[in-house]
Amino acid sequence: MSPRADAFARLLEAFERLPGVGPKTAQRFAVYLLAEDRMAAAQLADALGTGLQRIGRCARCNTFSESTLCSTCADESRDPSVLAIVETPADQQALEATLGYQGLYWVLMGRVSPLDGATPQSLGFEALLDRASDGQVREVIIATNFTVEGEATAFMLSDLLKRKGLKVTRLARGLPVGGELEYVDLPTLAASLRDRRPG
Amino acid sequence: MSPRADAFARLLEAFERLPGVGPKTAQRFAVYLLAEDRMAAAQLADALGTGLQRIGRCARCNTFSESTLCSTCADESRDPSVLAIVETPADQQALEATLGYQGLYWVLMGRVSPLDGATPQSLGFEALLDRASDGQVREVIIATNFTVEGEATAFMLSDLLKRKGLKVTRLARGLPVGGELEYVDLPTLAASLRDRRPG
Ligand SMILES: [Zn+2]
Ligand SMILES: [Zn+2]
Repeated sequence: MSPRADAFARLLEAFERLPGVGPKTAQRFAVYLLAEDRMAAAQLADALGTGLQRIGRCARCNTFSESTLCSTCADESRDPSVLAIVETPADQQALEATLGYQGLYWVLMGRVSPLDGATPQSLGFEALLDRASDGQVREVIIATNFTVEGEATAFMLSDLLKRKGLKVTRLARGLPVGGELEYVDLPTLAASLRDRRPG
Repeated sequence: MSPRADAFARLLEAFERLPGVGPKTAQRFAVYLLAEDRMAAAQLADALGTGLQRIGRCARCNTFSESTLCSTCADESRDPSVLAIVETPADQQALEATLGYQGLYWVLMGRVSPLDGATPQSLGFEALLDRASDGQVREVIIATNFTVEGEATAFMLSDLLKRKGLKVTRLARGLPVGGELEYVDLPTLAASLRDRRPG
């Protein structure tokens, strides 16, 4: 018989369902919570329970929200003619932090990744197309990540959105602010050359 | 106002209390559980709640247990004259898997690490010394990891146990320096158990 208590084994199993968490990390989490910080364990259990109960999706942008509309979509000072598509709430927060964007958002909650079972269907492209076709949106900024999967997602979205007659733009690729040509990787430098703007 | 729902922010905070989990990993966990696998979220909340309710410590060896005595300590076929001191339940499982050890255990649930606040006091060295002085134990095998902290822990324990007149041994240095019990292959670990040396 295993020296592990059953409840302990079940806790390890539950942690191992998290992305990127293997047996060793699950052990570390479980031992830490049960032996060193049971308050944190209670806090996590409670936050998960409350989250499952209260957190749904914003009807207008698909992000997590405890009300029908998230605070951004409910903000009437935002410009409804521009819609930025981002992969995650964290990406939305990054754009918000620039203080340079006043439009609205669509949060994909992922990116197309067939190996992980993330398809245009499972990501709700249909709902996004409906949202973008509300008659108010004039420009859709595709702000997915510049990863292979983010680029593939952008490519598909761009095609679908253009067919709806929408103006589609993407974030510029290029050197980071303060970056030096000598130290930028070649693909980025090449993209920055292609995407050059009027000087 | 942040686009994060409050319940979402609280979930992120709870995840960030886990060891080695920063804001980015917490986001990944929370988005995954809420957007992709709410069953896993419920399972984790339940496993944490059940664990907190049911999992205490074995009165005889300090490991996690749902009853007063864990299954190993309750097993009368084990040899009560030998006591192996390990850092974690995972290390105990690794020794059990060799099928080369019939004695009992003491599970420290950590190792001396002043920077993390883990001291001989917080690790319960006193209770271990009481346990080892039960009159039945003839040999204490110190089976802490061969890391800097594991070695320091072994050094302190060896000194304290010898003062109690106990025979102290250590696992042989068949393990690679810096190696952890949990990841050593079985034959090496078994040999290292056979070749244990005076501590
Ligand atoms: Zn919204
Ligand atoms: Zn026990």
